[in-house]
Amino acid sequence: MVRKSQTTRLTTQHLANHGVEGIFGEIAKNHDLTVDQVADLAVKQLGMDFPTLTFRHRMQMTKKEINAKLAQIDADLGQVLFLPNGEIRPDGGLIEVLDDDDEWRVVLVTEAKYQGKDIENIQKGELVGKKKDQDLMAAGNAIERSHKNVREIANFMLGEQHFPYILFLEGSNFLTETISITRPDGREVTLRYDSGSLNRIDRLTAVNYSMPINTNLCENKVVTSKGQAIMLQAASIYTQGKGGPWDEADMLAIMIEVATTSIKVLASDLFHQMVAKPNEEVSDDEGR
Amino acid sequence: MVRKSQTTRLTTQHLANHGVEGIFGEIAKNHDLTVDQVADLAVKQLGMDFPTLTFRHRMQMTKKEINAKLAQIDADLGQVLFLPNGEIRPDGGLIEVLDDDDEWRVVLVTEAKYQGKDIENIQKGELVGKKKDQDLMAAGNAIERSHKNVREIANFMLGEQHFPYILFLEGSNFLTETISITRPDGREVTLRYDSGSLNRIDRLTAVNYSMPINTNLCENKVVTSKGQAIMLQAASIYTQGKGGPWDEADMLAIMIEVATTSIKVLASDLFHQMVAKPNEEVSDDEGR
Repeated sequence: MVRKSQTTRLTTQHLANHGVEGIFGEIAKNHDLTVDQVADLAVKQLGMDFPTLTFRHRMQMTKKEINAKLAQIDADLGQVLFLPNGEIRPDGGLIEVLDDDDEWRVVLVTEAKYQGKDIENIQKGELVGKKKDQDLMAAGNAIERSHKNVREIANFMLGEQHFPYILFLEGSNFLTETISITRPDGREVTLRYDSGSLNRIDRLTAVNYSMPINTNLCENKVVTSKGQAIMLQAASIYTQGKGGPWDEADMLAIMIEVATTSIKVLASDLFHQMVAKPNEEVSDDEGR
Repeated sequence: MVRKSQTTRLTTQHLANHGVEGIFGEIAKNHDLTVDQVADLAVKQLGMDFPTLTFRHRMQMTKKEINAKLAQIDADLGQVLFLPNGEIRPDGGLIEVLDDDDEWRVVLVTEAKYQGKDIENIQKGELVGKKKDQDLMAAGNAIERSHKNVREIANFMLGEQHFPYILFLEGSNFLTETISITRPDGREVTLRYDSGSLNRIDRLTAVNYSMPINTNLCENKVVTSKGQAIMLQAASIYTQGKGGPWDEADMLAIMIEVATTSIKVLASDLFHQMVAKPNEEVSDDEGR
């Protein structure tokens, strides 16, 4: 997968002529999709998997919406906003389904984070650091900003029983295995997944209560402590543990799995549409 | 208050000879305390306010401790750790009290965040930006990293009924009122609190569900949605809304208020010590 710099975009019409295999076929020909483009494909596939439901894909949610949702749960919440136009923009956007009461419900939120260029640098034979004499760059901490959007969406979904937030990680700061990369001059450089100067996954695991990564945690777990029920909202962290870029087909499959879990949790509120006669039109991403 | 660059430190012995008034007297003479130094004073005052209780102040908590606490609540939680020595370091540290079962319980966690140097730049007459022709610098987003430690401590305290996390904000990115600053040449520059290029408070309000700022939210609120009880863990955000530095006495007073709320919530678990005959020795910060 490439980051936002490339802007190749598949047309809606083109995709509407294809089934699921068609979607994966497109992926095979386009190894340069951004996470929001893969999410666009996920909307298409969800429309085919659930032809009686209506989906939309949008790239932002306003703080006003989040506050309004919080205030519905309790009047003390969602009261403060300094910038009236404030919004959040998870880079893969949000996918929602229209429920039987004509309310949009979130079924998928995705972000793809890339941190650590060591693999690319070594492959190119570039040394790094102030004196340009190191193989590896000490990892930064910008990834910690990811917690903000997770928390914003968790607040928006405080009244839901599911939390379909996926963080796709890529780069040398998110390895789960030790790997060796060969430089152009033939020298091998080892990247240890458990090196404190390299690995930054621990900076994110608070979002899933340090439950397993590469796992669909969409359905909220309820635990109890001293008689108090506590509903957890755990993001699902998926990482390219051996380095290298994400395969778009893998991303799409994970998105569909998590979104399908959301639809399962929401099924009571989608019931009348789910038992309706299928409409042959493919639901489009009218929210864009 | 100054940031970490200055390292003036009051000695424990020196403070132990003073009462509360003595502590505020020390503050009056030392307007250059870091947030951890103010927290040190808070421990002293708590020791005097609650002479039968034992407090400690420490600067870090390990991810292992957080994971162990999560795993106590449910065996699925707290399982993942890549760096065995991983820890978090809220800059004001953590204050804990020893409960009747000899367990340390968190009564206060503080961080002080400074972002936006516009007031200082204008007072010095320095223009900013690439061409050095602007009065104001577009605000950055590093403050979003604050969400990580809030979430880590929230996880550690998932089984508690209180969440004594204070974020003290300072700098031109956290104004709640519009102010005017005069340059050395006499020209006045207006800093609008509701300017999108300046205000970054909205980037933090997810930590308190957009409840009011400058408010003690230590005692957890429980709300219900669709019959499901949801326990909120809201950080308390305090900001210097008119610009300027924090007054250490104000910080200390806020710390004592929040820590006292923690002790009130924990009172059942501190009962035997609270009804014990007061010990005249001042509890020391043995955790440092």
